[in-house]
Amino acid sequence: MNQKINHLTEEINQLLATSIEESLLDTNLEESMRYSLNAGGKRIRPVLLLLTLDMLSNDYKLGFSSALGLEMIHTYSLIHDDLPAMDDDDYRRGKLTNHKVFGEWKAILAGDALLTKAFDVIINDTTLDDAIKVKLIRRLSFSSGHLGMVGGQTLDMQSEGSAIDLTTLEQIHNAKTGALLKFAVMAAVDIAEPETLVATALEQYSEHLGLMFQIKDDLLDIYGDEQKLGKAVGSDIENDKSTYVSLLGRSGAEDKLAYHTQAAHQCLAQLPDHYNTENLEAIIQLFNNRES
Amino acid sequence: MNQKINHLTEEINQLLATSIEESLLDTNLEESMRYSLNAGGKRIRPVLLLLTLDMLSNDYKLGFSSALGLEMIHTYSLIHDDLPAMDDDDYRRGKLTNHKVFGEWKAILAGDALLTKAFDVIINDTTLDDAIKVKLIRRLSFSSGHLGMVGGQTLDMQSEGSAIDLTTLEQIHNAKTGALLKFAVMAAVDIAEPETLVATALEQYSEHLGLMFQIKDDLLDIYGDEQKLGKAVGSDIENDKSTYVSLLGRSGAEDKLAYHTQAAHQCLAQLPDHYNTENLEAIIQLFNNRES
Repeated sequence: MNQKINHLTEEINQLLATSIEESLLDTNLEESMRYSLNAGGKRIRPVLLLLTLDMLSNDYKLGFSSALGLEMIHTYSLIHDDLPAMDDDDYRRGKLTNHKVFGEWKAILAGDALLTKAFDVIINDTTLDDAIKVKLIRRLSFSSGHLGMVGGQTLDMQSEGSAIDLTTLEQIHNAKTGALLKFAVMAAVDIAEPETLVATALEQYSEHLGLMFQIKDDLLDIYGDEQKLGKAVGSDIENDKSTYVSLLGRSGAEDKLAYHTQAAHQCLAQLPDHYNTENLEAIIQLFNNRES
Repeated sequence: MNQKINHLTEEINQLLATSIEESLLDTNLEESMRYSLNAGGKRIRPVLLLLTLDMLSNDYKLGFSSALGLEMIHTYSLIHDDLPAMDDDDYRRGKLTNHKVFGEWKAILAGDALLTKAFDVIINDTTLDDAIKVKLIRRLSFSSGHLGMVGGQTLDMQSEGSAIDLTTLEQIHNAKTGALLKFAVMAAVDIAEPETLVATALEQYSEHLGLMFQIKDDLLDIYGDEQKLGKAVGSDIENDKSTYVSLLGRSGAEDKLAYHTQAAHQCLAQLPDHYNTENLEAIIQLFNNRES
């Protein structure tokens, strides 16, 4: 991983660690929120946001609040997805899931509170103009709500155990995973306000990244290394889920991954020469080569 | 109920009925969101918001988006509170609860989506300036998150089955119920921007209303009429919950209700003469005399 990515990941981890202020109420709700927020994810989404902003402007720190809010949304979605009524997972990233540590009702509330806090952290950013905050909140509520992530999760849950076609599979992933990855890139666009051509190329770049992410996920779930993944492989087959591999076969899925990898590179090639695309190229490599 | 309140309730119901746009994804998530949103609540919070704004300005319609967002937050909290892992209620307002109709996982997601939509509806209001939207979102995220409603719900759940003192009881209700009632009044203040004296008096008014609401709730849960309430009485005793009645006795609770009723009136009496406080007085009566 390149040094810039390491550095940003570290910065995000530090900011997340102090992002949930203690309430005066005598509960451990905040401990539960922090447990999942600081459980050591890869921080792909906030890193992508900051790298994009770093390329577009001279102050990537203007993206901190959006990066934190985005990771809070991602984290709340994992807490709720892991619940007994949803995927019923006991472990995530090698650690007990939130409800296994804090109990089911508190995990529901910790998720609700993190979702709410995501909007709070952006709206209270003192470094951004009101007009930019409004654009960011508009984009975040759209990306993470019933027309975005939650809608995708619903279609995914509903499709378990039934055969779906490739169109439906892409609908699921564009909404469930793609919407937040697109937010990462486009939040940087909202803040830096580059010309339309740049915004369009970056939006397409984010869409290809989203599909790469999911195709790779499906490949790793069958052909990955359990030790590197930190979880058992084969869960999609066990849960009778349609995936890129089940619909296209291994080589079909690999071809599709290669296609979107190439297309993502082409999007960056369209950007004016004065943009240094090195780090966004590194993200493509990271998505393509990741083993966990 | 006065005519103005009836009229506003009707307007809110109509706006709520069309507030959730259909997704392109083939799920019934939106149906689940609408089911609870249109289940016929009393709309006390949005009505209070619009009445306050109507008194302060000549355009109460500027409060529509906040009123809708507020009711969405209230509705999501009910959906999640009713879940098996929380209060495990099968009925609400005489209708099956969301998870009894749509299943548990969809109820969780419908709640998540309504919470997210609350921010979406305010940020996309084309009648408000960005600066006002920022104030409203800041207030809503604070009021409904871990420092407000969700924190109060956590302390409430945690306190079930154990004896708590009056201080803790008020902490619970100030956060769980009071925060959203305060939002209702103070969102109108954010929009109309009256002088500080007015803002302060209205904030105190909303705090007394919040306590009135909860004391009345506790009294109705023991001495109310089951038919008018639309639910069984005695649930607090059954759940071994400390209430104003269990801590102060019936007459102690009634005295406290009378105290806050009087104090709420006094707050309105502090307002400059050109404000017509008639409808906000009516709200005090409504809170004091309600039978459901």
